[in-house]
Amino acid sequence: MDRFMQAAIDEARKGYDAGGVPIGSVLVHQGIIIGRGHNQRQQRGSAILHGEMDALENAGRLAAHVYREAVLYTTLSPCAMCSGAILLYGIPEIVIGENSTFQGEEALLRQRGVMLTVYDDPQCKALMERFIVERPEIWYEDIGEPGT
Amino acid sequence: MDRFMQAAIDEARKGYDAGGVPIGSVLVHQGIIIGRGHNQRQQRGSAILHGEMDALENAGRLAAHVYREAVLYTTLSPCAMCSGAILLYGIPEIVIGENSTFQGEEALLRQRGVMLTVYDDPQCKALMERFIVERPEIWYEDIGEPGT
Repeated sequence: MDRFMQAAIDEARKGYDAGGVPIGSVLVHQGIIIGRGHNQRQQRGSAILHGEMDALENAGRLAAHVYREAVLYTTLSPCAMCSGAILLYGIPEIVIGENSTFQGEEALLRQRGVMLTVYDDPQCKALMERFIVERPEIWYEDIGEPGT
Repeated sequence: MDRFMQAAIDEARKGYDAGGVPIGSVLVHQGIIIGRGHNQRQQRGSAILHGEMDALENAGRLAAHVYREAVLYTTLSPCAMCSGAILLYGIPEIVIGENSTFQGEEALLRQRGVMLTVYDDPQCKALMERFIVERPEIWYEDIGEPGT
């Protein structure tokens, strides 16, 4: 596992250990992690702090050129909101832990020229599968679905 | 001016008066404002709290059906991030103050079935035009552009 995806998984595990949705993300610029985060729905009662959004927020205000030279690592395929943030800031490359428990807006991102790599990582999948079984109501709320 | 757009404009003015990007938004459910907000880039150093995102965050965690019965009012055409949040939560209707100083992802939203109304409101335009002249560096940062 590359060290940036490992850092995103570490964030996801922090989220899980705190009772939250286990999705983590890191923003990398010139080989350095400049923002880390994980989903904060349960912990901070947030409707917008998905893992990717939390990493972007924790990176702080950045000049346009930094985003345009950055890579975003995320343990799960980015939803419409997080994909929209990627498009707003022109982040050119996204590395995704897995997309089998949820598939976000990958087609839209590719269509707009974003380079995507999907690892199909068993740790990412196992964490999400476990959470979806344990706390389905939080998971469906997180993706705006009425649930089961 | 309808009272919900007026409430969004009031939020935008609060932002302007605090030295921030003057974009405001309210989320309305069954005729009641359940979330209000304005861009917080300058005030809170936020990369993700656009007006619409701040209104969604201030509305708190909501069940999927609430978003699906809601209307989002925003003083400016929603960018890719805010449009993505609208799509994530399935908000079916967006009322936009103006789209002449910036046009967001209106085509994508329409393509996905979101109903859009654009007021072309002179108050919204005047506020944005003034801000873009006064603080172009903050404005371009807010939309992920290198600027002038």
